[in-house]
Amino acid sequence: MSGEVSLETIVSLCKRRGFMYQGSEIYGGLAGTWDYGPLGTVLKRKILNLWWETFVGSRDDMYDIDSAILMNPKVWQASGHVDTFTDPLVECQNCHARLREDYIKDKKCPVCGKDKFSEPRQFNMMFKTNIGPVQDEKSISYLRPETAQGIFTNFKNVVDSFYPDVPFGMAQIGKAFRNEISPRDFIFRSREFEQMEIEYFVHPEEWEKAFEQWRKDIHKFLKALGLPADKVHELEVPDADRAHYSKRTIDFEFDFPIGREELLGLAYRTDFDLMNIQKASGKSMEYRPKDGGAPFVPHVIEPSFGVERAMMAVLSAAYTEDEVNGEKRAYLKLPADLAPVKVAVSPLLKNKPELADKAREVYKMLKKEFGAVMYDDNGNIGKRYRRQDEIGTPYCVTIDFDTLEDDTVTVRSRDTTEQKRIKIAGIITTMS
Amino acid sequence: MSGEVSLETIVSLCKRRGFMYQGSEIYGGLAGTWDYGPLGTVLKRKILNLWWETFVGSRDDMYDIDSAILMNPKVWQASGHVDTFTDPLVECQNCHARLREDYIKDKKCPVCGKDKFSEPRQFNMMFKTNIGPVQDEKSISYLRPETAQGIFTNFKNVVDSFYPDVPFGMAQIGKAFRNEISPRDFIFRSREFEQMEIEYFVHPEEWEKAFEQWRKDIHKFLKALGLPADKVHELEVPDADRAHYSKRTIDFEFDFPIGREELLGLAYRTDFDLMNIQKASGKSMEYRPKDGGAPFVPHVIEPSFGVERAMMAVLSAAYTEDEVNGEKRAYLKLPADLAPVKVAVSPLLKNKPELADKAREVYKMLKKEFGAVMYDDNGNIGKRYRRQDEIGTPYCVTIDFDTLEDDTVTVRSRDTTEQKRIKIAGIITTMS
Repeated sequence: MSGEVSLETIVSLCKRRGFMYQGSEIYGGLAGTWDYGPLGTVLKRKILNLWWETFVGSRDDMYDIDSAILMNPKVWQASGHVDTFTDPLVECQNCHARLREDYIKDKKCPVCGKDKFSEPRQFNMMFKTNIGPVQDEKSISYLRPETAQGIFTNFKNVVDSFYPDVPFGMAQIGKAFRNEISPRDFIFRSREFEQMEIEYFVHPEEWEKAFEQWRKDIHKFLKALGLPADKVHELEVPDADRAHYSKRTIDFEFDFPIGREELLGLAYRTDFDLMNIQKASGKSMEYRPKDGGAPFVPHVIEPSFGVERAMMAVLSAAYTEDEVNGEKRAYLKLPADLAPVKVAVSPLLKNKPELADKAREVYKMLKKEFGAVMYDDNGNIGKRYRRQDEIGTPYCVTIDFDTLEDDTVTVRSRDTTEQKRIKIAGIITTMS
Repeated sequence: MSGEVSLETIVSLCKRRGFMYQGSEIYGGLAGTWDYGPLGTVLKRKILNLWWETFVGSRDDMYDIDSAILMNPKVWQASGHVDTFTDPLVECQNCHARLREDYIKDKKCPVCGKDKFSEPRQFNMMFKTNIGPVQDEKSISYLRPETAQGIFTNFKNVVDSFYPDVPFGMAQIGKAFRNEISPRDFIFRSREFEQMEIEYFVHPEEWEKAFEQWRKDIHKFLKALGLPADKVHELEVPDADRAHYSKRTIDFEFDFPIGREELLGLAYRTDFDLMNIQKASGKSMEYRPKDGGAPFVPHVIEPSFGVERAMMAVLSAAYTEDEVNGEKRAYLKLPADLAPVKVAVSPLLKNKPELADKAREVYKMLKKEFGAVMYDDNGNIGKRYRRQDEIGTPYCVTIDFDTLEDDTVTVRSRDTTEQKRIKIAGIITTMS
C-alpha cells in the first residue's frame, strides 16, 4: 500500500529520523519556518541537483544566475508586487487581531470570540526591512517574494556577457519569502522556501512550441522524482483565475496527503516583465538576432518549482507500508538516486572488535565508491533495518562471523527485504 | 606575473565575462549586494562543493544542517546579538546623516560638510523585519547575521535523531545578512553573503587536539583552492581583540588586492553557545557518552568560511598576465576542478556547416564526459582564446578542415598556449 499516508505520519517520521525539524524548535518554534536536518539536507540537495542536471546542466541553452535576496525596491514597484501582492485582512474591533476574512467561517474572532470586524484592507505579503543606518521610507527594502525578478533584472547583463541565441533560458535556485498570514500543512505553505525557477526567452511567435516542450519535460522530471503519473494532474488555469500577466498557465497538481494541491506552475508570461523593466529603467530590453533579423523583446515561458513541495511530494509518494513476517513495516521507496543513504553497513554485533574492524573496512570501500554510505551499529540488526527502511536506504550490508571466514556479506534489499550472501568484491557491481 | 592585480581589474573582468554583476544594477544598484552571473554561479558552486566534499562528504563524523534564515528572536537574545552586535554611529546635527565615527577622518560630514555631531550611539547590524500581519515589538524578527546559531539550536535535534559519538560536527551552507554601514571592496564586505560553517563538538579536554587538526585541514583546503601558501597568513588573535566567547581564535588572512585581510576564522568557542541555549530554553544540552562516562556539555571548535571571500581570493590568486607573441595576455590560472568551463569547442570558421557539424559532435561527446563544456563560435579564433583565457578555461579544442580529413583537432592549453594536434578519440584521456 503506497501513498495513502497522513501528513502527521510524514511530519513525525521527518522529525524522528532527522529530515525536517520545526524552525527554532528549541525556543518554541517560529510559525512557517522549517529547518532541514541531516537527511533532509541531503535529500533536498539531491532534488536540486536532479532539477539542475535535467533542466540546466545537460542542456546547451541555459545560463545560471544567483541573484541577491535583497533587491532595490524599484524591482518590486516595476513588477507590481508593491501594489498588488496582497491579501485582504479584517481587524477584530475588540482585540485588534488581523485575520483573513475567508478564514473566519463562523464570523466570530478566533482570538477573543467577538464578532465585530473592520472592512477588509489590503495587506502586502512581502517582508519589509530597512537598509543602511536610517529607518525611513527611503531605506525600505523587501525580502524577495520570488526568484524570477532576479532573473529578469539580469537579462540584459547575460545578453551583454554571452550574446546567446534565442531561445535561451536563465535558471536560478534560491530562497524566497512570503509573509503568509496562515502558514500551514508542514512545508507546503511556509514563510521561507526555496524556488527552482527558469525564465525561458523566446521569439513571440515561438511561445506555443516552447510551452509544449516544457510541459513534456516537466512530466519527465516528475517521473524521475518517483512521483506516480496517476497522482499528477494538469490544471489548465481559466482566464479569470490567471495572474494578469499570463496568457496561459498550467498548474501541475499532485495528490498530497492534504489533498490535490499545486506542486508547480508553467506560465506563459508574455513580455510583461521585460517591458515593465524597460519602462521603469529606461533601458532597452530588445534582443538583436545575430542573423540581422528585426530586434524584438523576447517573450517568456516560466516553469516554476518549489523544492519544499517537491520534497513533500517525493516523501509522501515514497512512503509505503507492508507486512513482513506478520509485522507492519513502514519504508520510503525512494528512487535510488534520491535516497540520502545509498547503503548502510553494520557489524552483526557491535561489541566484537573483529566484526567492527571488518565492517569499517567494507564501509570505507563503499563510501569511496558511492559517497552516501552510513555506518550503523546502533541497536540490534532488526532495529537497524527498521531505521534504514524508514529513511529509504536501498541496501543494508551486514558483516557477521561467516564474513571473517569466506569474505561474504549479507546484502538486504529495502523493497523486497530479501537477503543475499555476496562476496565483498562483488558488492559494488550488485548495487551500481 | 601572478597576483599583483588591482581590485578594479577583477571587478571589471567579473562583469564583462559574467561572473558577478552589481545587485539590482538595472535600477542603479543596491549598495552591498551582488548577483552571481552564469560563470560566477558555477564557480561558487564548485567552491561550495569542494568545501563540502573536503569537510563533510568525505568524513564520517559530519552532519548537514540547512536551517531557516528567519528565526525566533529569542535565538538572537540568547546569543547576545540583540545587545552586542552593534557598531557605534554618530548623527550629523545639520543633515541627520548617520555615520561611523572612525570614518569621519577630517571631522566634517561627508554629506553636507558641517562639523557638529551627536555622541556616538550603538546601531544594531541585524536587519529587522516583522512576521505576521501586525507590525509591533512582539512581531520583530531578524535576518540571521550568521549561520552558526542555526547549528547550535539544532544540536539537541541531531543528537536525538542520530546519537553520534563525540567528537562530531554539524555543517551548514547558507546566506547571512549584516546591515553594514559601509559595504565596500567588491564582494569582500557585502550586506548579503554566504557562509560555510562548521561547529565541531568535542569533549572539553579535547579542544586543543581538535583545534590543531582543523588548523592543518584548513591549510589543505586553501591549497586545493589554488591559493599560494605565501599569501596565506595566520593571525593569532590577541586576548583583547577576541570575541568574548572565544578562548582562542586564529584568523586566516590572505593577501587580497585590497591588502592583507581576513579570509576565514578558526575559533574555540568553549561551551558559550550551548550554555546560553540551555539557560534561555531551559532544556539540557548535556551529552551522555555511550560508554557510560559522565555527561557533559560539549565544547566547540568553529571553522567559519565565507564563500564570497574565498571566491575573491581564488580569482585574484588566479589572475595572471604574461606576454604571448609580443602581446599582453590576461588569464585566470584556476585549478582545473574549479574552472567554470573545462573545455571550449569551436569550429575554425563559423559559417562552414561541415565544420560546425563536426564541432557540435565533438562538443556533445565532451559535454557528456565533463559536463562543463562550452560551444564557442563568437568572433575569430584569436578572440575566442582571449575570452576563454579570461574565464580560466584550461583547454580549447578547434575543429578545422584537417579534422574532416584525419579526425584530429587542435587542443590548445591555457597555461602554456601550446597547441597540439590530437586524434578526437584521444581528447578525453588527454584532459582527464
